[in-house]
Amino acid sequence: MTCTRFRILPLNIFNAPIIPNIENNALRQQLEQIIDQKTKPIGALGRLETLALQLGMIQGTLTPKIEQPQIRVFAADHGLTKHGTSAYPSAVTAQMVYNFLQGGAAINVLARQHNIELKVVDAGVDADFSNSPFKDHPQLLDYKIRHGSRDALTEAAMTEVECLAALESGMNVVKNMAGNLLIVGEMGIGNTSAASLLLARLGDLSIADCIGRGTGLDDAGLQHKANILTQVLERHREAQVPFDVLAALGGLEIAMMAGALMQAASERRILLIDGFIASSALLVAERLAPGVAQYAIFAHHSVEPGHAHLLKLLNAKPLLDMGMRLGEGSGAALAYPLLQSACAIINEMASFSDAGISEQSK
Amino acid sequence: MTCTRFRILPLNIFNAPIIPNIENNALRQQLEQIIDQKTKPIGALGRLETLALQLGMIQGTLTPKIEQPQIRVFAADHGLTKHGTSAYPSAVTAQMVYNFLQGGAAINVLARQHNIELKVVDAGVDADFSNSPFKDHPQLLDYKIRHGSRDALTEAAMTEVECLAALESGMNVVKNMAGNLLIVGEMGIGNTSAASLLLARLGDLSIADCIGRGTGLDDAGLQHKANILTQVLERHREAQVPFDVLAALGGLEIAMMAGALMQAASERRILLIDGFIASSALLVAERLAPGVAQYAIFAHHSVEPGHAHLLKLLNAKPLLDMGMRLGEGSGAALAYPLLQSACAIINEMASFSDAGISEQSK
Repeated sequence: MTCTRFRILPLNIFNAPIIPNIENNALRQQLEQIIDQKTKPIGALGRLETLALQLGMIQGTLTPKIEQPQIRVFAADHGLTKHGTSAYPSAVTAQMVYNFLQGGAAINVLARQHNIELKVVDAGVDADFSNSPFKDHPQLLDYKIRHGSRDALTEAAMTEVECLAALESGMNVVKNMAGNLLIVGEMGIGNTSAASLLLARLGDLSIADCIGRGTGLDDAGLQHKANILTQVLERHREAQVPFDVLAALGGLEIAMMAGALMQAASERRILLIDGFIASSALLVAERLAPGVAQYAIFAHHSVEPGHAHLLKLLNAKPLLDMGMRLGEGSGAALAYPLLQSACAIINEMASFSDAGISEQSK
Repeated sequence: MTCTRFRILPLNIFNAPIIPNIENNALRQQLEQIIDQKTKPIGALGRLETLALQLGMIQGTLTPKIEQPQIRVFAADHGLTKHGTSAYPSAVTAQMVYNFLQGGAAINVLARQHNIELKVVDAGVDADFSNSPFKDHPQLLDYKIRHGSRDALTEAAMTEVECLAALESGMNVVKNMAGNLLIVGEMGIGNTSAASLLLARLGDLSIADCIGRGTGLDDAGLQHKANILTQVLERHREAQVPFDVLAALGGLEIAMMAGALMQAASERRILLIDGFIASSALLVAERLAPGVAQYAIFAHHSVEPGHAHLLKLLNAKPLLDMGMRLGEGSGAALAYPLLQSACAIINEMASFSDAGISEQSK
């Protein structure tokens, strides 16, 4: 019985943090009243109003405010890529880490624009940064579990010990972190495969519904990816409870992101969720520590096909739909100013009585 | 024959500015190449890439840049509101102008957030600001044509002279304005009716397709609005060429916005288009001075039902869909940072060769 295992395993193996419930009827009503009294027709600011409400609920306040927002980009390689499941070679993961550290990637540009602090977490890149010119780079955090996840076609992507270490490392990345908003981004050639596998198993979906072209597979590449992932799911058919699923299907960066999200939610931080991979980490986190998703604001709708299913499972409606599929946290960083706008609206707009304006006549 | 009148009227009555064509194949190809060589899979930044391309084309440069963005909120009253076509009394227009000048409206909050300069243009508010404490306010520009448009149920909303004055005033608002990006916002109780009338006539649509609840009409109010607007269209069935349509159906702020948009496009400024009313002004501008719409970036999809038809006529796909219907330029201000992101991506991201990253393997 999976139920029995679920009860035993997380308690023994992984101590998920306790997630405070954000629901508070009195606060919700007060927030609604404040928003409705602003100088605009009722509801005229649409989702900006519901966003302001959610931010107030997350922070437990009538005056939500974002301070020192943080991006952590989790990077790792994937054992499964040796089977040709990605359009880019694994070496690109490390190359992109260097790009992040030199400030040239999309996420660097967007983080600078919005004054969001960016750090890169080595969760398991298949490269030795300690021998690189970047070894002491202040933006590189070394939480490397191993040089890439294991080959999920032949064994679990992570052993239980490795998976546990990844989750706990993710929590440690967040503990004592500045600010009250977290974006988890990622870089890992092959990580759309891991996210698709997690979605297929945790969402009880067929692999065909969960996969896409990742960084740019052609038709034959996509069919090959489907074949490999089907074999992986069959190989790990016994893995059914969330911790086992995560360990079996990987990857290291997704496990670490899940740990980071759980820890951040336990501290009532705002979680601004990027695209497909970040949402898969949130799904894992929500299954391991129910309640995490209450803290999530969904930034954008990725064109990676599995994302629509993930969003449905998470009952989520993202803010943006810009046809993006980059990862790195880029969609979340792009949506970030909308959250600032929501805070500004609730904190700074005049009410009808402040401004001496006539109310609606009918 | 409307064709004949079209040829004579605009030449004699309104000298539309010449709009430079932004198309330039060589520049387009260079921009595409630059974007494709950035450190990301081809197309992975989705609409941010097409936005960067459009901004480069508008400015005729490989390094698009936004400088000193400007919002002008055009305010006016509408003679038609005496027939009960709006949920709020006309007095709210002037009250909201005071709110803008005191910094308490949604558009003030968003303009401050993004450091966009905001001025309010009195196009025809039914109030005498020269006797108010705000008469010398540096953010209030006096271009008042008259105290509200005429009652379109009994006469043209503007005489030809008034309509011409409104268009030319709009052009004057923009001439010598700082910066290279314009948002036109509006405040005018009753202006969704005027926009619906313009859309119905210029788009050859039934009034039922063009109207909605504005600031908050109930079902009976909506039916009443449909009846009144149907009568207005019938009263002005002779008005068919764009200038005549604008004069007959109003309003003063929409005419002035159309003038501002034409002038701004003639100077190759970026036009960041808000919702229903701003889009109706753009439709008028495009009909009077073909080519204006090339400079338009559509910020958001309003829930005002006519907006979907307007967007279709303008072949537009807005950036945001946040369920908003406030006006003031608020949707455009909310979308503004996306344009900054697009510029930053093209100007600041590393290319594959800059960063020494492997290209796609297949």
